Amino acid sequence: MAYTVGLDYGTNSVRCVIVDVADGNELGTAVYEYETGDAGIILDPADHNLARQNPADYIKGIEATVKEALAKAKKAHKDFDTAGIIGIGVDTTGSTPIPVDKNGTPLSMSDRFKDNPNANAWLWKDHTGHAEAAEITELAEKEHPEYLDKCGSTYSSEWFFSKILHCLRTDPKVFDAAYTWVECCDYVPAVLTGTQQPDQIKPSRCAAGHKAMFNADWGGLPAKEFLANLDPKLGELRDRLYNETYTVEAKAGDLTDKWAQKLGLTAGIPVAVGAFDAHLGAVGSGIAPGKLVKIIGTSTCDMLVADSSQQLADIPGICGIVDGSILPGFFGLEAGQSAVGDIFNWFVNYVAAGSHEALTEKAANLRPGQSGLLALDWNNGNRTILVDQRLTGLLLGQTLHTKPEEIYRALIEATAFGALTIINRFEEYGVKVAEVINCGGIAEKNPLLMQIYADVTGREMKISRSAQSCALGAAIAGAVVAGARSGGYDNFAKAQAAMCGIKDVTFKPMAENQEIYKQLYTLYKQLHDAFGLKDSSAKLGDVMKDLLNIKDRANA
Amino acid sequence: MAYTVGLDYGTNSVRCVIVDVADGNELGTAVYEYETGDAGIILDPADHNLARQNPADYIKGIEATVKEALAKAKKAHKDFDTAGIIGIGVDTTGSTPIPVDKNGTPLSMSDRFKDNPNANAWLWKDHTGHAEAAEITELAEKEHPEYLDKCGSTYSSEWFFSKILHCLRTDPKVFDAAYTWVECCDYVPAVLTGTQQPDQIKPSRCAAGHKAMFNADWGGLPAKEFLANLDPKLGELRDRLYNETYTVEAKAGDLTDKWAQKLGLTAGIPVAVGAFDAHLGAVGSGIAPGKLVKIIGTSTCDMLVADSSQQLADIPGICGIVDGSILPGFFGLEAGQSAVGDIFNWFVNYVAAGSHEALTEKAANLRPGQSGLLALDWNNGNRTILVDQRLTGLLLGQTLHTKPEEIYRALIEATAFGALTIINRFEEYGVKVAEVINCGGIAEKNPLLMQIYADVTGREMKISRSAQSCALGAAIAGAVVAGARSGGYDNFAKAQAAMCGIKDVTFKPMAENQEIYKQLYTLYKQLHDAFGLKDSSAKLGDVMKDLLNIKDRANA
Repeated sequence: MAYTVGLDYGTNSVRCVIVDVADGNELGTAVYEYETGDAGIILDPADHNLARQNPADYIKGIEATVKEALAKAKKAHKDFDTAGIIGIGVDTTGSTPIPVDKNGTPLSMSDRFKDNPNANAWLWKDHTGHAEAAEITELAEKEHPEYLDKCGSTYSSEWFFSKILHCLRTDPKVFDAAYTWVECCDYVPAVLTGTQQPDQIKPSRCAAGHKAMFNADWGGLPAKEFLANLDPKLGELRDRLYNETYTVEAKAGDLTDKWAQKLGLTAGIPVAVGAFDAHLGAVGSGIAPGKLVKIIGTSTCDMLVADSSQQLADIPGICGIVDGSILPGFFGLEAGQSAVGDIFNWFVNYVAAGSHEALTEKAANLRPGQSGLLALDWNNGNRTILVDQRLTGLLLGQTLHTKPEEIYRALIEATAFGALTIINRFEEYGVKVAEVINCGGIAEKNPLLMQIYADVTGREMKISRSAQSCALGAAIAGAVVAGARSGGYDNFAKAQAAMCGIKDVTFKPMAENQEIYKQLYTLYKQLHDAFGLKDSSAKLGDVMKDLLNIKDRANA
Repeated sequence: MAYTVGLDYGTNSVRCVIVDVADGNELGTAVYEYETGDAGIILDPADHNLARQNPADYIKGIEATVKEALAKAKKAHKDFDTAGIIGIGVDTTGSTPIPVDKNGTPLSMSDRFKDNPNANAWLWKDHTGHAEAAEITELAEKEHPEYLDKCGSTYSSEWFFSKILHCLRTDPKVFDAAYTWVECCDYVPAVLTGTQQPDQIKPSRCAAGHKAMFNADWGGLPAKEFLANLDPKLGELRDRLYNETYTVEAKAGDLTDKWAQKLGLTAGIPVAVGAFDAHLGAVGSGIAPGKLVKIIGTSTCDMLVADSSQQLADIPGICGIVDGSILPGFFGLEAGQSAVGDIFNWFVNYVAAGSHEALTEKAANLRPGQSGLLALDWNNGNRTILVDQRLTGLLLGQTLHTKPEEIYRALIEATAFGALTIINRFEEYGVKVAEVINCGGIAEKNPLLMQIYADVTGREMKISRSAQSCALGAAIAGAVVAGARSGGYDNFAKAQAAMCGIKDVTFKPMAENQEIYKQLYTLYKQLHDAFGLKDSSAKLGDVMKDLLNIKDRANA
């Protein structure tokens, strides 16, 4: 019997799962809520853009969760033996860079900087670097447009260099004290394997490619000269960053004696190179060519892979195309919607009287088109395919009789139309989407949403069997890095075949609903283009009447 | 001391006021709720378009309200004497036609038809004739486009001939039994003056001109041939309708002995020709050239007058232009918004958690532009200037933080933008709007709305002193028809000068708000044209960004 450990670092907590390598079953699981800040996030009441994390919480979380998960596995499974654990995988949020000293120790752990938020991890959703992001985008457009081609034409405030440059500009003492900056997903494996020294770390291809413009086409990270043009000191930092990156089949190192003892595991078992949660979540959901994995939460990540031995065009508006960021040997493609669950939460928490459950129940009794409503899903901007944060929500078709459940359903439908727009964009550029595997709480809990997604996209909606796809993906990486000779697998395809699965219940498109949603999607796309594109010549004079005609037919 | 009686027939009740001719003070008032149906309206659960009223309720209402109002006046004012009452005026809803026999008695009062809703009064908001309205519009466009020029290019299902033609088509027994059809505003004065015989009735110019395409330019009502083309029997009815119409300065007749006795009034006092509530409401609010009267309720009526000795172009999209429909010697111009209070009611009753009061209080703390929201006020279609019922609401700019009070304020602002669009249309065609007098509950109770209207339209908002402008207008008609020799007035200008007034509190535009609303109105107009006009080339690609820019500046 062989097992692996998956460590999944989320926004508010870290989760550990102990997984059976034979079938992917989760034998024990434990969660540690980060201690520092507000639900694990260091905030600044004066600056809503600021979101930091204490790296010490990441380390505390290892011991707390691994020990508890092992204890649970032992308790629940008599034949479970910790000696059977053959590997460890790690996924984290990102881009979440940490300023570290020459030994790879976070500056926040020093007395000098322990109270300075800038010396902590800059959490993915920290937006303090928005001005720097715009600056990087502008310079890249001028000097190196190719840098942006793979990441949706716009460098984000959430990404690596925006954050570092912002630190340099606003807190030069921290910047100067930092020998280099390490992504959270590189930091945790380095800690476990005693490879924290910057020159020993094996940087994640996933993080580097999606967030730091790393690409073999131009020799790795952006040119020193380019970074120096942003700031000479950023150019100097380039020399202390990395030139090689690794996919999750590579080993970050071997578990140190000290950590093995602390956790009760076997010293020397391999720890896989880290990756982001969505990417290993896609692995845990069984991603493969033609299989779109949708991770649906407050926002969505839409993940696809495409054989990297074939030519692949740049796909406008897709967040990132990185060779090996999800599966070795495949381009990893990342798209997403800026808000999905967040839109429903907004409506329920801020606007309407009623709960998610009550509104969903009533919305489920409506037929497509019946409300006459149409919405855009842009309350938090549009990530794919418009890559534009300065877009907002829209609701159209309301009368004096429009009910909250009708609006709620229209909002679900809007996110489905947004999902279809992403699928269409992939297919327009030759990346087929034959089936869709969903994961995340909403997919599991809301059959109405899944049916609407099936009807709108015209594709069967499947749901990942594991409720912890990200942690499972990390555990799969642990099994692959251990290899077949240790009881694991020699490649991801074999590991996924054994360890992934989908739930029995799936959602098939219903022809009569599809027909109506086709008509509604035509109108959605008209609004999408009219409000989303600078010079659209979309004519909207018939939109309200077309909607009323659809409504009349649906109510006939 | 001279007094007059104003009888104001509304949708659910009739109100009587006893007014002092010297200063317009209301000495006594009484309300009678119609007995029949649901809040006075006969409904059909199987047909939401149907809305009828029992004419017997109109008659019961006279005695009930006049006697009570007189008693109250006596009680409250020691020197009040019913002998001082010199005239009576009447306003009603409309178009509210009643099928009557040769004696002018409503068919619903006969045994044969007493249980048939079609034999009752067809209330203004009855929409059963929508197909017939479309038919009339289509035929008029082909054969007599001039018929539609004065009534906004579309003949409405709410109007006289749509209802009669629908009766003819669906209940020929009622149609055949009807000698003719009489508007409610003609029926009540006829009852009071014993002139119910169809050839004795003095038909209201207001009703005929706004609802029955009556115009001196083509010799009165539509040609017999035109009506016969719709149905031969409708052509025959033309001969039993009228050729002359009268303004409210004309006398419908003298109060009969029977009614004088019943009410305790002096026999022979004059009763003015009737008119619609909005028109006499405008009179009671002090309408005059350059003074727009806005009657703000669930919807609005926007009333203007223009000297009829001057040339006046047809104004596209205005509901009606009728010589003498409001004041003798002036064109009466009627515009309106299909929903105002109804939109706020919809939001509070159907969608949001919170009351009008709570939402208004919070909305009042917001600055113009601060929410980033923009709405269209079309939840019930658009009456003026687009004359299109098949338009719907739109809300734009919502984020994940948008609050109900922000939406509530955006809805108020949308109705203000709609109001400005009407004002602009009048001015484009040479009818100046120098000041605005508002009446109706919302105007009196919601200073936030009044301030927004002032800021958006750039005009001072005044409020009619009387809370019962319609009934006061009717009483003013009573004073004019009585004439100066009886203690009344010889014309409306003199009567209004004495009897009308505005409240002390007015709302002046604030320059800084005006500036922001100018920017928002530009965006409103872009949406208005893009969604409201068939072939608008409005480009909307910047609307969301422009709104966010306005929002950012408002929050700076």
